[in-house]
Amino acid sequence: MPSSSDPMSWVDANSEQLIEELRECCRIPSISAEGGPAMDEMARWLGDQLAPVLDETRVVPVANAAPAVLGRAQGALPYTILLYSHYDVQPVEPLGDWSAPPFAAELRNGRIIARGVADDKADIMARLHAIRAFRATGRPLPCSLVWLSEGAEEVGSPGLRHLLEEYAELLRADACIWESYLRRDDGQPEIGFGCRGIVYVELTCRLLSRDQHSAFAGVFRSAAVELAHALATLVDVDGRPTVDGFGADATRPDEGDEAAVAAVEVPSAAEAALPGRRVLVGRPNAEISRRMVLEPTINISGFSAGYTDPGAKTVLPAHATAKLDIRLVDGQTPDAVVDQLRRHLDRHGFTDVSIEVLHSEPASKGPRDSTLARALVQAARDCFGEPVVYPMVPGAGPLHIVNEALGIHAVMPPGSTRMASGIHGPDESISVSDYLDHVKFTVRMFERAAEIEAAFQPDHGETYNLTITA
Amino acid sequence: MPSSSDPMSWVDANSEQLIEELRECCRIPSISAEGGPAMDEMARWLGDQLAPVLDETRVVPVANAAPAVLGRAQGALPYTILLYSHYDVQPVEPLGDWSAPPFAAELRNGRIIARGVADDKADIMARLHAIRAFRATGRPLPCSLVWLSEGAEEVGSPGLRHLLEEYAELLRADACIWESYLRRDDGQPEIGFGCRGIVYVELTCRLLSRDQHSAFAGVFRSAAVELAHALATLVDVDGRPTVDGFGADATRPDEGDEAAVAAVEVPSAAEAALPGRRVLVGRPNAEISRRMVLEPTINISGFSAGYTDPGAKTVLPAHATAKLDIRLVDGQTPDAVVDQLRRHLDRHGFTDVSIEVLHSEPASKGPRDSTLARALVQAARDCFGEPVVYPMVPGAGPLHIVNEALGIHAVMPPGSTRMASGIHGPDESISVSDYLDHVKFTVRMFERAAEIEAAFQPDHGETYNLTITA
Repeated sequence: MPSSSDPMSWVDANSEQLIEELRECCRIPSISAEGGPAMDEMARWLGDQLAPVLDETRVVPVANAAPAVLGRAQGALPYTILLYSHYDVQPVEPLGDWSAPPFAAELRNGRIIARGVADDKADIMARLHAIRAFRATGRPLPCSLVWLSEGAEEVGSPGLRHLLEEYAELLRADACIWESYLRRDDGQPEIGFGCRGIVYVELTCRLLSRDQHSAFAGVFRSAAVELAHALATLVDVDGRPTVDGFGADATRPDEGDEAAVAAVEVPSAAEAALPGRRVLVGRPNAEISRRMVLEPTINISGFSAGYTDPGAKTVLPAHATAKLDIRLVDGQTPDAVVDQLRRHLDRHGFTDVSIEVLHSEPASKGPRDSTLARALVQAARDCFGEPVVYPMVPGAGPLHIVNEALGIHAVMPPGSTRMASGIHGPDESISVSDYLDHVKFTVRMFERAAEIEAAFQPDHGETYNLTITA
Repeated sequence: MPSSSDPMSWVDANSEQLIEELRECCRIPSISAEGGPAMDEMARWLGDQLAPVLDETRVVPVANAAPAVLGRAQGALPYTILLYSHYDVQPVEPLGDWSAPPFAAELRNGRIIARGVADDKADIMARLHAIRAFRATGRPLPCSLVWLSEGAEEVGSPGLRHLLEEYAELLRADACIWESYLRRDDGQPEIGFGCRGIVYVELTCRLLSRDQHSAFAGVFRSAAVELAHALATLVDVDGRPTVDGFGADATRPDEGDEAAVAAVEVPSAAEAALPGRRVLVGRPNAEISRRMVLEPTINISGFSAGYTDPGAKTVLPAHATAKLDIRLVDGQTPDAVVDQLRRHLDRHGFTDVSIEVLHSEPASKGPRDSTLARALVQAARDCFGEPVVYPMVPGAGPLHIVNEALGIHAVMPPGSTRMASGIHGPDESISVSDYLDHVKFTVRMFERAAEIEAAFQPDHGETYNLTITA
């Protein structure tokens, strides 16, 4: 029995029930790394929630992964948004660091504490609740929607590309909303119109059959010395990549990108600071923001050689390894970057340093003037204030798979997550009020998308029975 | 009842018993790192063996260490040799890698397999058996002897300096024989007239309060990047130290040192080789030998930062560490080297890299024309052929403590150990025939010392009733 209120009022009036349902979602321990019956239970539960509000809902098998939940709902406009989310969560270890059981979804001081509540169950439920807000109030969905929740994002989305290709017709859409990005500590919303790519490699220098007595230093070649020298040629102490040719193939950002990035504030140094240490590289803010978003970077995620336990052991290590994560921007391809790295090492004499590629993804950068992009910005302004716009977010993600398999771009709206949410960590949590704002933002985003799309197509606009509030 | 045979014949005639006694010595599990009653048992057992052949034997307590075994025996000459050894052994782990129980002292294919048999129980027993060879055959000891066996060498000889000072009168001697050095694979004896020093430091670069998402590479300073750069400034890929001023205070080796070192062959590359890899730095043999013995070196014993387990984790490490062992030569002091390192790091901008000194010892280089030095060379020629002479051995050791506390130099004779002995490793072993050669070499060394000392002092020579065989 539809209520006569509008969707926004309905959210406020039903807030306690919405929070209870989010907590119910969080109580299913859908840890993809562990698998087991909770994955199927989670897919079934989600299908049961979606069936009453979508026109079509399907729980489908995925090769080498948990089932996916797909669906479609016809809106007032044929303009269609694909809603991507994942219902799987990270493992809970170290369990002792949690102040509440990770799947109890305890409510404390206005926050829900649960593994997966921020990443990514708040997205799932906020989108579901936004759709329900229209259904419950008897309003037509402003635009058409496609649902896609996978159950393997936290383990690398093994079946995603195949799934998208297999169900391309069902998933046909004009644009995709990805997982949500952040709201800053002061509540300012952040929107990402793509993400950087990544090449993750392991470098290994293995010179001796086994560790030797370090009395032979200076006589036997040292894998640790050679790898340290090789690493020092890859990136300077000022954080700038120095691999020969690296970044030369990057697409030049347009003026709009440059302007948007100039307005991005660097992350809070206080968050990372060690007393008495400068945290940021000694560069002007504008250069730092640009590096973080628009430029490729080379990071040493780890290195190891010889004896690393407490105390002293005098040994000449037989081998040394380093893990590099290289962030890519538009125009760079993972293969070309690995080639550049190989040629660079060879040219500098490090032919005995091998490269193993552990994984890679290209960058994915979408337009900021599409209907959905503009809708996101407008809705963010309506709900939270002026957004911080990232042409690409600094991290990497498989957005490019949606782009390649379905031919559409994906964008990342603000959601319930803040830096304090501790995603992937102990006591992952979001605030109840952020969640309710998230649902209302999603309602407004659908409305704004339809409004903009209708305005774009004036000959069709009048035929849609829109209920956009100012 | 003394036998009428000479000491050398006595060794051959009693070889089975000598081997049984060495095995008995090896069956006491005197692991200093573990302590326990075996340490006292070992000291008592050794004292009981020495009492019948020395004029005075004492088992004395050592502060913070196992007891030491001391003794004296008057010889035909007042010229006195201090015999240094240690009765403690390394732990046996990994136990599963042994083919025989480490304290069973199993005899197999002409070898004794036991923890500590090469390091250092063969020295203890070969010296004891050499003394017994004189006693049993009714021959006077050619020179006077002082006995010193400590029980804490494998844990850093914590009480050694104090012990030497406390018993300086009892331990008064003209020169010291240290632990034995090596015989090469072809049987050629190696003699060391000192050893390089060492400074073992841990470098730490800690910049962030905790690891950050690696999307912030190029924005936050990276401890791993800065430490890799710092390490690359310390030593070049050719193995040559590049710390500003390092080695400038080293004493210039004399012509005899240079000539001796030019004859030292570099260690077998085949021993260390990995298929398809060059093992030695690309330098001429003479330069390599010189580096190994007469020059200070800087080695990276280990380094560690961030994520080092299998697979990928994208993290900007909050801190990075490296362990360096720096080998010193005569003239360098540990304090000056640490100062040079600090100034070097500061001058190159690495003020956030801290230095912790874990331990250090100066080099100790003795004369090669002393009575004992010449006796060692002569005895080695008599028993094994022309020796390889190291003005200093490449490794480090506390020889300088003897030099400083007692005012005498220590030398390292050839013994039972070869590269195949696997000291500190599983299946530590020596061959029975090498051991018997070791005993006879020790007999000859005492004889040669007396012969040379008598020749030095012709007015006293005739009064000693020497029994030197040609």
